[in-house]
Amino acid sequence: MDNDTFRRHGHQLVDWLADYFEHVGDYPVTPPVTPGEILSHLPDTPPRDGEDMDTILRDYREIILPGMSHWQHPGWFAYFPANNSPPSVLAEILTAGLGAQCMSWITSPAATELEERMMEWLRDMIGLPAHMSGVIQDTASTATLCALLSARERATDFTTNDRGMHAGLTVYASTQTHSSIEKGVRIAGFGKHHLRLVAVDDAYAMNPEALRKAIVEDMERGKKPACVVATLGTTSSMAMDPLEPISAICREYGIWLHVDAAFAGTAAIHPGHRWFMKGVEACDSFVFNPHKWMLTNFDCSAYFVRDPDTLLQTLSMDPEYLKTSADKQVKNYRDWGIQLGRRFRALKLWFVIRSYGVRGIADMVDRHIGMARDFAAWLEADERFELLAPRQLSLVCFRYKQDQLPEEELDRLNRRLLDTINASGKVFMSHTQLGGRFCLRLSVGQATTSEEHLQQAWQIISEAAGAL
Amino acid sequence: MDNDTFRRHGHQLVDWLADYFEHVGDYPVTPPVTPGEILSHLPDTPPRDGEDMDTILRDYREIILPGMSHWQHPGWFAYFPANNSPPSVLAEILTAGLGAQCMSWITSPAATELEERMMEWLRDMIGLPAHMSGVIQDTASTATLCALLSARERATDFTTNDRGMHAGLTVYASTQTHSSIEKGVRIAGFGKHHLRLVAVDDAYAMNPEALRKAIVEDMERGKKPACVVATLGTTSSMAMDPLEPISAICREYGIWLHVDAAFAGTAAIHPGHRWFMKGVEACDSFVFNPHKWMLTNFDCSAYFVRDPDTLLQTLSMDPEYLKTSADKQVKNYRDWGIQLGRRFRALKLWFVIRSYGVRGIADMVDRHIGMARDFAAWLEADERFELLAPRQLSLVCFRYKQDQLPEEELDRLNRRLLDTINASGKVFMSHTQLGGRFCLRLSVGQATTSEEHLQQAWQIISEAAGAL
Repeated sequence: MDNDTFRRHGHQLVDWLADYFEHVGDYPVTPPVTPGEILSHLPDTPPRDGEDMDTILRDYREIILPGMSHWQHPGWFAYFPANNSPPSVLAEILTAGLGAQCMSWITSPAATELEERMMEWLRDMIGLPAHMSGVIQDTASTATLCALLSARERATDFTTNDRGMHAGLTVYASTQTHSSIEKGVRIAGFGKHHLRLVAVDDAYAMNPEALRKAIVEDMERGKKPACVVATLGTTSSMAMDPLEPISAICREYGIWLHVDAAFAGTAAIHPGHRWFMKGVEACDSFVFNPHKWMLTNFDCSAYFVRDPDTLLQTLSMDPEYLKTSADKQVKNYRDWGIQLGRRFRALKLWFVIRSYGVRGIADMVDRHIGMARDFAAWLEADERFELLAPRQLSLVCFRYKQDQLPEEELDRLNRRLLDTINASGKVFMSHTQLGGRFCLRLSVGQATTSEEHLQQAWQIISEAAGAL
Repeated sequence: MDNDTFRRHGHQLVDWLADYFEHVGDYPVTPPVTPGEILSHLPDTPPRDGEDMDTILRDYREIILPGMSHWQHPGWFAYFPANNSPPSVLAEILTAGLGAQCMSWITSPAATELEERMMEWLRDMIGLPAHMSGVIQDTASTATLCALLSARERATDFTTNDRGMHAGLTVYASTQTHSSIEKGVRIAGFGKHHLRLVAVDDAYAMNPEALRKAIVEDMERGKKPACVVATLGTTSSMAMDPLEPISAICREYGIWLHVDAAFAGTAAIHPGHRWFMKGVEACDSFVFNPHKWMLTNFDCSAYFVRDPDTLLQTLSMDPEYLKTSADKQVKNYRDWGIQLGRRFRALKLWFVIRSYGVRGIADMVDRHIGMARDFAAWLEADERFELLAPRQLSLVCFRYKQDQLPEEELDRLNRRLLDTINASGKVFMSHTQLGGRFCLRLSVGQATTSEEHLQQAWQIISEAAGAL
């Protein structure tokens, strides 16, 4: 493709995206397609000769786009958001065009040093202590795996990397912890049987006394507690594990404390919503995802550690073909994570933080939390609904209720309610289970979601409940 | 940022990129910056209020760009390339703008089904057998980790995920294997002491008899061989481990065979350069990186497995908040890898393959290999140089030589030679060690590298050698 053709289509796509940003609310949030439908429009074999970009872009519009779920739709209330912004997209255009692979300082000095600075900015923005060092990971899954590996090595005097996994290392997290914790426990060789799911309180936050009891029992049985994963903002209900008593227990027994604030971390940018970070200064590692709520398009996960040497000792490799004369003076972020190859992700953080300013991001967080508060109030004022967990930050967990109906029937009705809401095409929500009950989740966080979109969602939910 | 501002800057960046593609050869390949220099231009604290994009883009041009190594420079002959193309960048503009998180079918049906089709295309393009299923990973490091984990689980009847790592599982790879293999062995809990680095022949390819011997010895000592990693195209010298005898040994002892063709895999698109794939039909897993040589910007790694169930049994998690009614009918690629979150990477594969056609990609591969062949011939005709490994595909390994100089002095001279070449700013090469000797690597693969760029590189190398 010659440069003029690139220029022409590039302009065309920028215009198309600008229109898309403006009108994404007009698409159905999730597409009315059945499994295999898109596949049936895609030829079995690749073309032998090149096709022109007009044809390819026509197929993009006619085949791919109608099959996409629109994460940037203002009616997206499902899962946690992955919100986005024009400055982030501008940075990604440059990142894609430069095509730099940022594994080592020498392979992109500015990318490395910008990453270092951006992680300092983020650390200060959310109030992490200054002794933490940061690195960008792709996802919290990967960051958590790094934490588990560091904890594993520290708990075994750095012998597991050499000799292989010891039996009997244990990991602790609440019953509400994210699935990536168990996945990491499996990958790192601890074994699921050595993951203790600690009981929670009525608000689904970890019970520190139950944690202590589990640790003591394990030690009595000859196990070696290696890591506690505390969650700030669980996926199901945004529960906040209490960091102060948990970190005291970790200090007492010399256990690695990893804090998973994948979603909630962004809220700490607003001083008025930072209360849940109390006690964070004692953690060994901490992760939050700017790609969830901080206007930075996926992927971009911020991982902070107290002691980079532990991370480096756990993950660094130094083959001859990667050595450079600058190695002693610089950070080579390839040694800070699982992957060798790395995209230039710091650029979009720089664009986003500068473009919105800390205040712009904090204002957005506050606005989203305010909307969730309003929505929770509407629910509480309507006797057809009940909250299934306290509203925390931007997440509301609720269900339709009806006296004298058995739980099973309520689950069935609420599942139907969710399907009806999502079939509207105007709103997309997801679900979870809390205390064994099917639970609807309204998660506010899309950049363009306004009070009107929230009211529309409430109207759709309310009407769907009325028709049950 | 309003849409008109996005539109204006988007157009500006597209134009800037088009110019960049045209003139990237005018930049020094690696920047003349010292460690910390970029950092000193970046303020310690984030701005409180938003800044306008003109200011941010000015800083990008004045601070960041002068500190970048230019991976798309036609004089990039270092490491393995990470080449790029305008259609790939166009796709990334859309991927960034849509901001979709493609963890599950429901979260982006078209992304899932396009990924499925693209992996079939790639499988067929490089001549992998039809029984292989594919998934896009970020990097080969991650793909290899998936392979090691699958092998670990299969070798322990899928009990390690539950009970934790058993002692005594062993892994085999050649002495020339990539650092990500040892890293994966450490992460997955095998322990580096259980990684056997098998001897190689004169061309640095694995010696199958040495492999068999290592396996038999381990079994006699009560170890359980779990995985052999064969490399097609080692990083140091593009050596090709012989798949046919290796796969016969793996079958005989029931060992998982993972094939790491991260760079070389793309060459198999050209039937005339597919010879090294002989025997691949017996592998359990296979990885190659379209983001290296296939005009697809980083990151995009293609991982293929014979038996997806083993992968799923090893890595899938099914928490309530991710369940959907479509789960039984669809692929949820989140269960095919380490990370839960996933970018929409299939789109750029689709754009690239359609835009160039299979033939366009094969022609590029053939052109690069032809250039490496020419370059090796120039070296062989000049008595000041010697090849340190047979030229394979697009990589030439060589050094300056001088009779009667001790090896140490030759290493020193060649290191100086490399520094002088790279200081030209016109050419960037990297090095390795082969047989204990310092070795220069000329790796051809940049999309825009022409015969003229190669001649220029040769002239710079030749003059630098003359001045030693």
